[in-house]
Amino acid sequence: MAKAKTKKKRVPIILITNDDGVTAPGIRALVEAVKGLGKVVVVAPDKPQSGMGHAITIGHPLRMQKVNVFEGIEAYSCSGTPVDCVKLAVDKVIHRKPDICLSGINHGANHSINVIYSGTMSAALEASIEGIPSIGFSLLDLSIDADFTAATKFARVLVEHVLKSKQEEKHLCLNVNIPKGDEKLIKGIKICSQAYAKYEEEFDERKDPHGRRYYWLTGEFVNFDKGKDTDVWALKNNYVSVVPVQFDLTNYELKKKLETNWTF
Amino acid sequence: MAKAKTKKKRVPIILITNDDGVTAPGIRALVEAVKGLGKVVVVAPDKPQSGMGHAITIGHPLRMQKVNVFEGIEAYSCSGTPVDCVKLAVDKVIHRKPDICLSGINHGANHSINVIYSGTMSAALEASIEGIPSIGFSLLDLSIDADFTAATKFARVLVEHVLKSKQEEKHLCLNVNIPKGDEKLIKGIKICSQAYAKYEEEFDERKDPHGRRYYWLTGEFVNFDKGKDTDVWALKNNYVSVVPVQFDLTNYELKKKLETNWTF
Repeated sequence: MAKAKTKKKRVPIILITNDDGVTAPGIRALVEAVKGLGKVVVVAPDKPQSGMGHAITIGHPLRMQKVNVFEGIEAYSCSGTPVDCVKLAVDKVIHRKPDICLSGINHGANHSINVIYSGTMSAALEASIEGIPSIGFSLLDLSIDADFTAATKFARVLVEHVLKSKQEEKHLCLNVNIPKGDEKLIKGIKICSQAYAKYEEEFDERKDPHGRRYYWLTGEFVNFDKGKDTDVWALKNNYVSVVPVQFDLTNYELKKKLETNWTF
Repeated sequence: MAKAKTKKKRVPIILITNDDGVTAPGIRALVEAVKGLGKVVVVAPDKPQSGMGHAITIGHPLRMQKVNVFEGIEAYSCSGTPVDCVKLAVDKVIHRKPDICLSGINHGANHSINVIYSGTMSAALEASIEGIPSIGFSLLDLSIDADFTAATKFARVLVEHVLKSKQEEKHLCLNVNIPKGDEKLIKGIKICSQAYAKYEEEFDERKDPHGRRYYWLTGEFVNFDKGKDTDVWALKNNYVSVVPVQFDLTNYELKKKLETNWTF
């Protein structure tokens, strides 16, 4: 009995990545947020990788090098995408599955359909495919000088919660968005569904100095979802939104319909 | 009445893209497959974009140019990802939503978890986000010399079916995989769910001529799913697999659990 009591508690390994790159203020805020909760290892892109979605690098090899960016924290920059970073970290840095994988804190929102385009969330989803509980954090502020005070606080609360809870969910993945502004105005945390809200895109057509056309992606964000349990609703009403996310894309409702109605 | 009878039937517009690039044999097979079913417009990447997932290009502008690759077919090559191609086609080429968007035929499987990494399927998913019915086609043969005979035949059957059916599904998206080999051996079409099957990855670590490390992504495909309604099962048993796919990643089951169990 005495032996069991003095048994050293295993320190959880916390893998951190992002899509804004290893030098972004947001990832620094996330590292600060979880200090003391476990052994932190950072493997993050060496350059911005926003909008990379679930891209992986298969046509050329990856580079990875140790960087001294966070005091007292083992950190690496990687030439690949956020998803590459997670794969490489597990196989070549940690040599086992970490206890949790965190991604962010992203400079800018990843609610609604953005979950699909987001490198931040794709890294988290990748971890969950591997059976590593994961959380992606995003702050509704694109600025490089964004104030991460509230985001940091809520990130710590949620990471502690997941680390402490008995992990019954084999593939837990949470998409967390934090409203911009004074933390005192935030009303709390809301479990939400992904809103059907998206960018109505238009390309800005220009001509280069040689007269050849090129196109910039631009767009206006439109919320088509009237639901009150969505992430967009929660954020608009000053809640932190938490959407549990899955990688099984099967539309089971439609599957049933097609099984009944389609004959060849 | 006579007037109504002679009313000209609107020709459906069929947008075709892929992730292997505009010159790949697979996209040529798809163009051939749907000839006569509508007006075909091709907007496809100017280079291979496999594994690009749902990546979009936001950090730099896109180029697009008319190419003469398919006889009598309006076609463009684009410097962006498969998802970029769909967005650009709608806004700058067709100037409206096409009646259907087809992607492929991919050289290689996109069943199970591959749906998430696949540029082919991300292009189809992107169309469905926009409310355009879409189908992604993949042949279980990576070879550049793959025989697309069976794939072409089944692609035509499915496209005809979707074009003819009353579109009640606002966001129809199908992930279609076709077995390799003699079409006579294919038993038919099966509506499936996405198998939990994935690559167990390992990076091949090498040193360049200057002694610096680099890493190649490699992996072995493992099926963890014992289900008999999955795409992996169907393909193994020589069926064409059709998985209806959705872009709402919310894990509703877990959402319910967290709403009940999580208090802050």
